Amino acid sequence: MNVVLGPNNYGKAETRLVHVRRDRAEHELADLTVSVALAGDLAGTHLHGDNAALLPTDTQKNTVYAFARDGVGQVETFALRLARHFVDSQPSITRSRVAIAEHGWRRLGPHSFARTGECTRTVVASYDGSTSWVVSGITDLVLLNSTGSEFHGFVRDQYTTLPDADDRILATAVRANWRHLGADEKDWDTSFAAAREALVGAFVNTYSLSLQQTLYAMGAAVLGVDGIVEVRLSLPNKHHFLVDLAPFGLDNPGEVFYAADRPYGLIEGTVLREDAPPAGLAWSLTG
Amino acid sequence: MNVVLGPNNYGKAETRLVHVRRDRAEHELADLTVSVALAGDLAGTHLHGDNAALLPTDTQKNTVYAFARDGVGQVETFALRLARHFVDSQPSITRSRVAIAEHGWRRLGPHSFARTGECTRTVVASYDGSTSWVVSGITDLVLLNSTGSEFHGFVRDQYTTLPDADDRILATAVRANWRHLGADEKDWDTSFAAAREALVGAFVNTYSLSLQQTLYAMGAAVLGVDGIVEVRLSLPNKHHFLVDLAPFGLDNPGEVFYAADRPYGLIEGTVLREDAPPAGLAWSLTG
Amino acid sequence: MNVVLGPNNYGKAETRLVHVRRDRAEHELADLTVSVALAGDLAGTHLHGDNAALLPTDTQKNTVYAFARDGVGQVETFALRLARHFVDSQPSITRSRVAIAEHGWRRLGPHSFARTGECTRTVVASYDGSTSWVVSGITDLVLLNSTGSEFHGFVRDQYTTLPDADDRILATAVRANWRHLGADEKDWDTSFAAAREALVGAFVNTYSLSLQQTLYAMGAAVLGVDGIVEVRLSLPNKHHFLVDLAPFGLDNPGEVFYAADRPYGLIEGTVLREDAPPAGLAWSLTG
Amino acid sequence: MNVVLGPNNYGKAETRLVHVRRDRAEHELADLTVSVALAGDLAGTHLHGDNAALLPTDTQKNTVYAFARDGVGQVETFALRLARHFVDSQPSITRSRVAIAEHGWRRLGPHSFARTGECTRTVVASYDGSTSWVVSGITDLVLLNSTGSEFHGFVRDQYTTLPDADDRILATAVRANWRHLGADEKDWDTSFAAAREALVGAFVNTYSLSLQQTLYAMGAAVLGVDGIVEVRLSLPNKHHFLVDLAPFGLDNPGEVFYAADRPYGLIEGTVLREDAPPAGLAWSLTG
Repeated sequence: MNVVLGPNNYGKAETRLVHVRRDRAEHELADLTVSVALAGDLAGTHLHGDNAALLPTDTQKNTVYAFARDGVGQVETFALRLARHFVDSQPSITRSRVAIAEHGWRRLGPHSFARTGECTRTVVASYDGSTSWVVSGITDLVLLNSTGSEFHGFVRDQYTTLPDADDRILATAVRANWRHLGADEKDWDTSFAAAREALVGAFVNTYSLSLQQTLYAMGAAVLGVDGIVEVRLSLPNKHHFLVDLAPFGLDNPGEVFYAADRPYGLIEGTVLREDAPPAGLAWSLTG
Repeated sequence: MNVVLGPNNYGKAETRLVHVRRDRAEHELADLTVSVALAGDLAGTHLHGDNAALLPTDTQKNTVYAFARDGVGQVETFALRLARHFVDSQPSITRSRVAIAEHGWRRLGPHSFARTGECTRTVVASYDGSTSWVVSGITDLVLLNSTGSEFHGFVRDQYTTLPDADDRILATAVRANWRHLGADEKDWDTSFAAAREALVGAFVNTYSLSLQQTLYAMGAAVLGVDGIVEVRLSLPNKHHFLVDLAPFGLDNPGEVFYAADRPYGLIEGTVLREDAPPAGLAWSLTG
Repeated sequence: MNVVLGPNNYGKAETRLVHVRRDRAEHELADLTVSVALAGDLAGTHLHGDNAALLPTDTQKNTVYAFARDGVGQVETFALRLARHFVDSQPSITRSRVAIAEHGWRRLGPHSFARTGECTRTVVASYDGSTSWVVSGITDLVLLNSTGSEFHGFVRDQYTTLPDADDRILATAVRANWRHLGADEKDWDTSFAAAREALVGAFVNTYSLSLQQTLYAMGAAVLGVDGIVEVRLSLPNKHHFLVDLAPFGLDNPGEVFYAADRPYGLIEGTVLREDAPPAGLAWSLTG
Repeated sequence: MNVVLGPNNYGKAETRLVHVRRDRAEHELADLTVSVALAGDLAGTHLHGDNAALLPTDTQKNTVYAFARDGVGQVETFALRLARHFVDSQPSITRSRVAIAEHGWRRLGPHSFARTGECTRTVVASYDGSTSWVVSGITDLVLLNSTGSEFHGFVRDQYTTLPDADDRILATAVRANWRHLGADEKDWDTSFAAAREALVGAFVNTYSLSLQQTLYAMGAAVLGVDGIVEVRLSLPNKHHFLVDLAPFGLDNPGEVFYAADRPYGLIEGTVLREDAPPAGLAWSLTG
């Protein structure tokens, strides 16, 4: 048997960076969790423990902090700066991926903030030495429609007991990532706001016959934002079960629900422009 | 050796209830996690497995859902209804505590909502068959001041290495609970909003020489809300450490921070009105 | 309205300490999470931000590490050393509490270990300048009996739907804490092992008519260990519901279960020796 | 702009199944979390809310429970049974993936068990209507070597401050998945035990110059188990930093460490047999 090394990468994960912009009357706050992954010619360290081509993950962490000295700006831009730096400065590194989660804060005063937990903005920037890719995203956006959702007409086999539903609660925790056409400088903040608005708008305004239908509508809406060519969504179906109150002599006209934790439906899908260019390294360091 | 049964209680914890009020053009949503604890003459089940005096926790869960059929209303009121029911209807039960966490949702449309994660409103209602106590509270309210905080003049012993700080980030995740003078019907929502505003205002506006000083100011501010007699605060000091950028030839004038997870300072304290009546069962079923 | 400061404490929480004993052929590993809480005359910092009486929590962390230089030994002893140090060395500090969670590792070789996740050993040592208290404990010990558990004969009211069970799964995640008679040096490791064995043995060997009955039996068993005078148990009832397979033409003779997350029953109780001395600060810094 | 539906799948995630085998003096316990994902011709539901081809996720959950009525057996076999069922019985479903996490329990008596937390066994079985793939794995296996690990000779750039280490703690939480040559019936339990032993043995016995070197050794060792052709490892470097005790007049000869949470190094790599057949759907429903 011959054993060989396959795809591999390494990096510093979850570096917690808070940046305060103090050169103005109202401080600005950026709160990021930054994860770096690098790939290239790393056979030496794997096969022989020869680290001559290995930039320590500790250095990667230092680099994140040092780069922040110039300010963070839009997270897509910061991720691209870092992704390009590692490949451009390290001969052994040929591909990089920098993932950032930006935690939101709401202004309370010139120097005061409250952390918002409504969702987290994410970005993954990848680079192969010549081309860059940017995937923006959102997680933990929990949405609920209290009506306007049905589910029926599905397959029934010998294990099916689910009754038809003509008016149910539809709730999900949105995880969505969208690929941009290129990585040129643009107003990423505006793009993110538009994509988020599209996701929320489609969820709210789609009369839903299945969570899949809502997923597709949400993806299609995001593709209406300039420069976005592909959207991947992962939507848990956060089940709300109507409680049977009949044993207590009560009806339950869609008012009292049990919110279940597990199990949950999980709907995952991709919606893309027909003319979307190949994804390259956008979704994975191995392409 | 003689072994005896000491204080004990039991109940159903973390019943997840979502209530939709549908009798209006705009639905209203209540999303609660309800925990019940009951105490009384429960020696039979402990000593002999004689359950004749034991209302099953499953029944307690059913009761939560059945009571919700009439609507939830203000969570303090709902907690009191439940707390009184169990003692008043069960001869063996002499003390009850109903704790509710209310998860926030923001309206997106007439039937659409986004879950807010900024904080969670809580209540604990207790009852002993004649008197009721209400403790309202808040958790997961994460606040940060990017300046206006110093820390110096502290004790130095042989294990002290901390330098004086004359301008640091002060951040915490507020857990606060406040005891009301009585349990009479009142506008609990307005009271909660005022208490929350007081907490946030005191955090923002206190020039802080220690997190303890901020804690006291926050507690005192909440006591300014009508009918609140005691406040208990638990404030983790979420440390933000200035990163030393000197090895990279850079200064760091209070801009780049490492946000640490563990360890953390933990400051806990009580602030109360001098004329606060005894707490009774407000903080614990055993008084 | 006159506002006053009530009970308060502060300290460094969750200092992560790993100690390697290297002065032997087989290394020994101690993996601890240490939390310190101190109380005393702390009005100055609360009322005026005067920190002259305040030992920084950073110093407390340093102290934990410095004390570990001499070795950790039994966690009860290490906790007592720390608890006594802070009160004895700080004029303003009159009461201390040091809580330690010890994470278990299994030996794989002379210098190699695998972390065990079966449970966590805990200790809380308290000190008031003259008397010390030790409370040992265990968390996350998940136990299950697949038979030998019934539940019936309980109260039925209009909200009760639970059927009698004459053979159910009984499962819980044990959190138990037990108070020792004094804080004199003793073989804490042996005591812990005996207490754990008593808990497990009583769970396994009690034919259970209610989780309360099992709780009492577990507590009483721990009191059989020399020098233990009080036990407090918190036992979630981790419900396993028999799945109804009848719609699929199948019976289910106690074989296929749904393991539920929430809600859960929560049974809490104290079992103590009739001659147990007063608890002092054992359970709380405020006594 | 033309919008199209890309790859998609759906299913019921995290169905909690506990199975008790009672037909013997000593009960046997299986505790599984089962997640199903199905793909095929699902355009109807995405584009039009037409669910005629959609087997509800609720039915998938029911199927898991119904199949368990015949016993669970080895988890690989159970996963394969389920994976094949959905494709073979549903005309619209052409690919399936069933992922199972098996939670360990240790026997305490004929009907009594303690949950072990040392690691979790996993399996992912995939099926496309004719071929099946099996990927076995392990998560949460936390290993530590207290010596026998160095790290030096790495790249130094202007952001590097890490000193050489000639004796450090090496610790990781192993997540490993290995692909089997085929999906024929075999003794999966024995194979799993051998793979786990190989992982642990290689970790313990590799004198390590980098975590990558240890990763490769672990992967190669697993390939020594009959029928395994590819291993993917994800190894966080759980940093243990030597505490500087010099300010307290103490040395620290590799004894006192701070165990950090974040950030952490993350080393990911694949080790495979040179003659490994193509992976098909083993690692992803989209191949």
